[in-house]
Amino acid sequence: MSTEQNKTESYDAAVVGGGPAGLSAALTLKVHNKNIIWFGSDALSDKVEKSEKIANYAGFEPIGGKELNDRFIAQIKTAGLVLTDKMVTQITKSRNGFTVLADNELYKAKTVLLAVGSVPPKGIINEQEMLGRGVSYCATCDGFLYKGKIIAVFCGAQRYEHEVEFLAETAEKLYLYTTYESTFTHPNIEILTKPMKAVLGENRVEGIELTDGRKIKADGAFFLRSSVAPATVFKGLEMNGAHISVNRSCETNIKGCFAAGDCTGRPYQIAKAVGEGNVAAHGIIEYLAKE
Amino acid sequence: MSTEQNKTESYDAAVVGGGPAGLSAALTLKVHNKNIIWFGSDALSDKVEKSEKIANYAGFEPIGGKELNDRFIAQIKTAGLVLTDKMVTQITKSRNGFTVLADNELYKAKTVLLAVGSVPPKGIINEQEMLGRGVSYCATCDGFLYKGKIIAVFCGAQRYEHEVEFLAETAEKLYLYTTYESTFTHPNIEILTKPMKAVLGENRVEGIELTDGRKIKADGAFFLRSSVAPATVFKGLEMNGAHISVNRSCETNIKGCFAAGDCTGRPYQIAKAVGEGNVAAHGIIEYLAKE
Repeated sequence: MSTEQNKTESYDAAVVGGGPAGLSAALTLKVHNKNIIWFGSDALSDKVEKSEKIANYAGFEPIGGKELNDRFIAQIKTAGLVLTDKMVTQITKSRNGFTVLADNELYKAKTVLLAVGSVPPKGIINEQEMLGRGVSYCATCDGFLYKGKIIAVFCGAQRYEHEVEFLAETAEKLYLYTTYESTFTHPNIEILTKPMKAVLGENRVEGIELTDGRKIKADGAFFLRSSVAPATVFKGLEMNGAHISVNRSCETNIKGCFAAGDCTGRPYQIAKAVGEGNVAAHGIIEYLAKE
Repeated sequence: MSTEQNKTESYDAAVVGGGPAGLSAALTLKVHNKNIIWFGSDALSDKVEKSEKIANYAGFEPIGGKELNDRFIAQIKTAGLVLTDKMVTQITKSRNGFTVLADNELYKAKTVLLAVGSVPPKGIINEQEMLGRGVSYCATCDGFLYKGKIIAVFCGAQRYEHEVEFLAETAEKLYLYTTYESTFTHPNIEILTKPMKAVLGENRVEGIELTDGRKIKADGAFFLRSSVAPATVFKGLEMNGAHISVNRSCETNIKGCFAAGDCTGRPYQIAKAVGEGNVAAHGIIEYLAKE
């Protein structure tokens, strides 16, 4: 889909997140013939994939996470649903709906469903404040800015490794923290053994601080995660601690914006996420009928 | 299980209803090693069974209702869950928990989950008021009282036909209304073609009135339905129209009593019911941990 189309077409709903909540909502919206854009990875949910055994999801005798995720993937193909593998970094409300920024492209939608999973509320210290001033969530969007420079990179899942490689080919030096055991052997990558605690700098990123107090000089910081903290993405969204505040209909404080799944709170369970995705989709259908 | 045992044992939870919400809760409580009594039919959900096609339940490509219900039945066997096929007609709160009356037997439980599906709020006119004064929900419990007498019977599903037959063998004359096309040929059964509108009588049942205004003399009235209206079963339960009022954690206004599924409101969807059953089960687990 070209950028030209994106700018003119307005979707009925933008569903953000490829976990069970996003899937459940997308299936229901599809059954109701809604025109949606669904942001997420083709691989759907890392969290489901990595579950050892799920014993309390109605319809499945104890099933491995990978097997269930594979069933989900098969199901979206049968349903004719397509995922757009772009990272949503900003959502704004306008008079006629919402504008979603994903990997530097703009999408318009009448409603939004946040199904972004359980993420830390605001990332690390100073991350949110430095967004666009040296902090980036997208290697392919902003990597070119750091040719010959020093960057710090947080990599939250193996599937972002191609982005790390792209950055390593561009930057002079790359400090990398991964949440899993990585196998990078690039000579200009230095693996950090302690997690990042804060982004340093006032007007622009000047470095990062690790949890052991070590400070590293850097011109930019990339956070490669499956999703960005909702409060960072959508200014004005009402939170309840780390979770998005919703009512029984999964409506947030912003009219036309719904939330479902782990991002609305515990229990962090597939069944709960699937249920809320369904409820939110019906809320969206009702909202669209009224507009 | 003998009545003796029932009177002394207190279950962690009484789950009322064998639909997707009850199933989802029972699975989760079982995983957490809770000792539950689960009221419902071995056949689980009529409503799921009769669904032509379910296209929006995550994990299943479009599936027939019967096939999905069969999967549910296989799953409870694997999980080692057992249903108690008795009709719950009264629940009362005591100092240490709840007392549940089902087919004239008493059960004690620390918590209750109402997952009774979408039922009319109070049955037909005067039904609730005449309960125990000629109105009954259980043929095997109260049928013997009507030997040689005239009764009116509402039969809400084919699986209650054995109860109708039992009543026809006992009563002198039986006026029967069924919600489906029935095939009774008993000489003392008269099939009613109009639905029942009201129970007649002030201190005791004297007859029933049909929607066309016709009045029929009867000594008793049996309502054979998959569940009784929540407000009838549990005095003091806060309702929102036809639905049980719950918060985001599926708690009702009565401490220790939860509700999930269609009985808490729309959308009447399997995914929503499964999600709420899971949330309610976690609420019960948390409640038990605190007590």
